[in-house]
Amino acid sequence: MAVKAPARRDQILEEAARLFGRRGYHATSMREIGEAAGMLAGSLYAHISSKEDLLYEIVLRAANRFLDEVTAISAEEATPEQRLRRAMRAHVGVVASNVDAAWAFHHEWKALTGERQEGIRRLRRRYERLWDDIVRGLPGATDPRFARLLVLSAANWTYTWYRPEGPLSPDEVADRFTDLLLAGLGTKEGRR
Amino acid sequence: MAVKAPARRDQILEEAARLFGRRGYHATSMREIGEAAGMLAGSLYAHISSKEDLLYEIVLRAANRFLDEVTAISAEEATPEQRLRRAMRAHVGVVASNVDAAWAFHHEWKALTGERQEGIRRLRRRYERLWDDIVRGLPGATDPRFARLLVLSAANWTYTWYRPEGPLSPDEVADRFTDLLLAGLGTKEGRR
Repeated sequence: MAVKAPARRDQILEEAARLFGRRGYHATSMREIGEAAGMLAGSLYAHISSKEDLLYEIVLRAANRFLDEVTAISAEEATPEQRLRRAMRAHVGVVASNVDAAWAFHHEWKALTGERQEGIRRLRRRYERLWDDIVRGLPGATDPRFARLLVLSAANWTYTWYRPEGPLSPDEVADRFTDLLLAGLGTKEGRR
Repeated sequence: MAVKAPARRDQILEEAARLFGRRGYHATSMREIGEAAGMLAGSLYAHISSKEDLLYEIVLRAANRFLDEVTAISAEEATPEQRLRRAMRAHVGVVASNVDAAWAFHHEWKALTGERQEGIRRLRRRYERLWDDIVRGLPGATDPRFARLLVLSAANWTYTWYRPEGPLSPDEVADRFTDLLLAGLGTKEGRR
């Protein structure tokens, strides 16, 4: 039992993230989450005490995965271009490994209340600052805030169109964006 | 009465879009939409026959605004760079003028059923093809599909962070992205 409990919890979190992503947090009931995980709502409460607990754990896990991956890259010896490439691969990899949790991290976290919402907001800011540092080193990032917004827009938007069963791996998706971001879409003469 | 009816309808659509954006389509009831618009659910049904009708009209109006604006730009005599700049301004302008409707156009449309969902899917594809044509003319768009994804990711993601009361106008936001997109973030030597 001690061995099985974490797996059960993971399964509940996975089903909850899927339902929150498909129908929205407010429209999803604990009964539906229980059904999706193959258990009665009563048994569900043995694992988790409220729907907000579930959302918090989903968002917190996602936040920590993004932070762990990109913090590691920030610490590596590398050129700014290499660092951008690695961070894009890491971010797109996290999104692709769990599109529903990435959605929750980007949108449903606002349904959290009080100190929990504040805590996630702080983690989100910390994540943005990591990206500010990565982007600031790039020679073309004359406008660092918008450079970070541009890079993260591309990386985040993947959850709306990327499908794991498609022809491109997460690394290939990340690399194609990195190539275009570094080289730019304009003519050489038109570049500053 | 004939003059006032459209304004009333606009107001209902606006409140519905706001609620769909904040709570999600499935979590929002006709009663709540009626309350937000200051009318009983019974009176609401004199203007609109179902919640899906409301969503459809919101999404269809948004789709047509995006399409009208960018179709006009595609027809203009201009360099590819000018066309990108104008299309970014147009798209960010539509998002900024109604963030809730833009959200519905990008996400909640999937809650539509049958022929309506198909119709919106066709309009979305038509819009992507307009952008494919704009982007294809750019010298750095060696990978046209990803160039379009990159450009539209930045433009679309604005609904998550742009606030009309902030310091930048929609045109300024669009221009900053266009400048970075055209010039690229890498070194001149590293550019292809």
